[in-house]
Amino acid sequence: MVRQDIAVLGATGSVGRQALEVISAFPERFRVVALAANRNASAMAELVTRHHPRVVALADPLAAEDLRLRLADDPVEVVSGADNITSIGSDPDVDMIVAAMVGGAGLDPVLEAVRAGKTVALANKETLVMAGRLVMSEARAHGAVILPVDSEHAAAHQLLTGVKREQVGKLILTASGGPFFGRSREELERVKPQEALAHPNWNMGAKVSIDSASMMNKGFEIIEAHWLFDLPAERIGVLVHPQSRVHAMLEMVDGSLLMQLARPDMRLSIAHALGFPELLDLPGKLPGARAPELTGMPGLAFYPAGEKDFPALGLCRQALEGGGSLPAVLSVADEITVAAFLEGRIGFTSIIEILARVLDQAHDSPAETLDDIKRAGRQGAELAKKICAEYGK
Amino acid sequence: MVRQDIAVLGATGSVGRQALEVISAFPERFRVVALAANRNASAMAELVTRHHPRVVALADPLAAEDLRLRLADDPVEVVSGADNITSIGSDPDVDMIVAAMVGGAGLDPVLEAVRAGKTVALANKETLVMAGRLVMSEARAHGAVILPVDSEHAAAHQLLTGVKREQVGKLILTASGGPFFGRSREELERVKPQEALAHPNWNMGAKVSIDSASMMNKGFEIIEAHWLFDLPAERIGVLVHPQSRVHAMLEMVDGSLLMQLARPDMRLSIAHALGFPELLDLPGKLPGARAPELTGMPGLAFYPAGEKDFPALGLCRQALEGGGSLPAVLSVADEITVAAFLEGRIGFTSIIEILARVLDQAHDSPAETLDDIKRAGRQGAELAKKICAEYGK
Repeated sequence: MVRQDIAVLGATGSVGRQALEVISAFPERFRVVALAANRNASAMAELVTRHHPRVVALADPLAAEDLRLRLADDPVEVVSGADNITSIGSDPDVDMIVAAMVGGAGLDPVLEAVRAGKTVALANKETLVMAGRLVMSEARAHGAVILPVDSEHAAAHQLLTGVKREQVGKLILTASGGPFFGRSREELERVKPQEALAHPNWNMGAKVSIDSASMMNKGFEIIEAHWLFDLPAERIGVLVHPQSRVHAMLEMVDGSLLMQLARPDMRLSIAHALGFPELLDLPGKLPGARAPELTGMPGLAFYPAGEKDFPALGLCRQALEGGGSLPAVLSVADEITVAAFLEGRIGFTSIIEILARVLDQAHDSPAETLDDIKRAGRQGAELAKKICAEYGK
Repeated sequence: MVRQDIAVLGATGSVGRQALEVISAFPERFRVVALAANRNASAMAELVTRHHPRVVALADPLAAEDLRLRLADDPVEVVSGADNITSIGSDPDVDMIVAAMVGGAGLDPVLEAVRAGKTVALANKETLVMAGRLVMSEARAHGAVILPVDSEHAAAHQLLTGVKREQVGKLILTASGGPFFGRSREELERVKPQEALAHPNWNMGAKVSIDSASMMNKGFEIIEAHWLFDLPAERIGVLVHPQSRVHAMLEMVDGSLLMQLARPDMRLSIAHALGFPELLDLPGKLPGARAPELTGMPGLAFYPAGEKDFPALGLCRQALEGGGSLPAVLSVADEITVAAFLEGRIGFTSIIEILARVLDQAHDSPAETLDDIKRAGRQGAELAKKICAEYGK
């Protein structure tokens, strides 16, 4: 078996660190050759000492300078700036990139890696939400393979492997329902940022935790699944499943249903992407990564995810149906709006109201090029800022 | 698509009738060319009028004579005797046989069909329990395909299709637990035949209903799965799942779990075998064959199937481990013992006690030829009769 040389982008974040944990559990299969992050020099210095990459990049030049000083005795090459991070994606020494950056900054390096025909283990949500058509058509053109890293899409990918597409009636993604599942609208209006950050099953970053509580996260996952698996939005459903054991299911045309279950542990879906088409023996290497217990626990329960209760799903479907730039508008508008909530400037239920107004006011336009997409992103940011200010407390 | 010509053996029974229902829902894909059964002439006459086979066989010569009179105006050829039923398996006009006979009588025609390289949709349990090694090696030698028809094995077959075998840690079959799940030993001792015949989820024949209540059915399914999927007994587990929605699951080596769900409806697993490698659009043809509901019902619950509570599983594993004729001994001994229970001669809990004593007293010997297997069956019958008489009320 050939060892794969891997670059981890967003290495200091939650997914990046878990990816490094999986990678270092299989030294005969994987080697870290490059690490990149935004600005956390001390965390990055520690990762470099542990994983010995050939090159390390921080987007922030001052942080990179700090890192150079910390690693003065290390042979690693330290570079800085977004362009240098992007070019890691096409580095001839790299076989696979783990794209675990948060936000729209993830798009450039992924596109670069795809155009260089690399395998991309994709954790960054914005890439496919904003630029799904572009990224997937470039992947086809350059023979790049995109493997999803989050639990729902990794589960769907596992289920769809070896199944003929015409035998699939519907893909269903599960949603935990977030920390507020079952609360009334009045209760939701009073939700504080720290409550929204406390997810019952998953240990995640702030932006993703709020998106998970508002269900925008699940809406974005519908958009991602559309591009990843070439399924129309109406063949992608959502069920609420607060236990987070079942991550995806397939309704087959013969009336059978296939489900994928796993413990709510990101390392499992990371390992799925890194190992594909093999399955890594994760339980043998990482304690706690064994199959989920099915006995001695409450039964696996599922609830409908109606768009009345979960308007975020409807917003994302609406953006996708336009076929153009609206998902990019919505994605960036969501970044702005969530930040406004975290800063205490708007209430929790206002997030979705503001995004609905953004969509109403936005113009759909083609999203064929990176420029188109960035223009749509700017439109989303401007509209969100304007409307957030109107809602501001 | 080429239309397949099908022979249904055991056509007047529960599985046979449901197979005919599926077959006639897809006239562009399947045609009934032969029907066979034991002795029910009036039921068979009706089936002939509805399905127009070229040939029809009853094992019982007097019943066949009756059928000839009933069908005097029908061009169908009526034959009789076990040999004529067996030879239907190798009829050059037949592409696929549905083997839905009950009991050891199913073995000869299946073996004949396998040796003629046919596709066999296998519902008869005894075939693989008694003669798994022989039937599977003949299938390999003659390029015959054996597709399981019962829900657990059809589910396992569906899950294993497209999955690399080395990625599978364990196959788990579910058991409803039967109508007596959770009852004490004292309560079980008083169980009457009519209670044991009333299965909560499945509509089945008498022998299978009692085997299901005693869990011998599930033990036999471990043996069948061993031969069908080439998995050692220790990689085949059982979980109790009273709702009968999940039929099988795979514990994958990476810590993920794949499940197959379907409504408890034999027509779905029959259709899986008939249509393979395609999936038939059953919900479009048969009302009620749609995917199972997951919302608005109690959560999917699972319970351990320990061998202390379910000694039948241990008996079957023990028989399988010998590697020879003991499963055949056990299979025939079970037929005798269940008949004794249905006739009120022994109590419900005595079934397993008697079978344990049969196994203790039986000699394991090679099961390479049909003669070996029939000899083992006779040994099982003699031992079971002797021990039943000792237990007799």
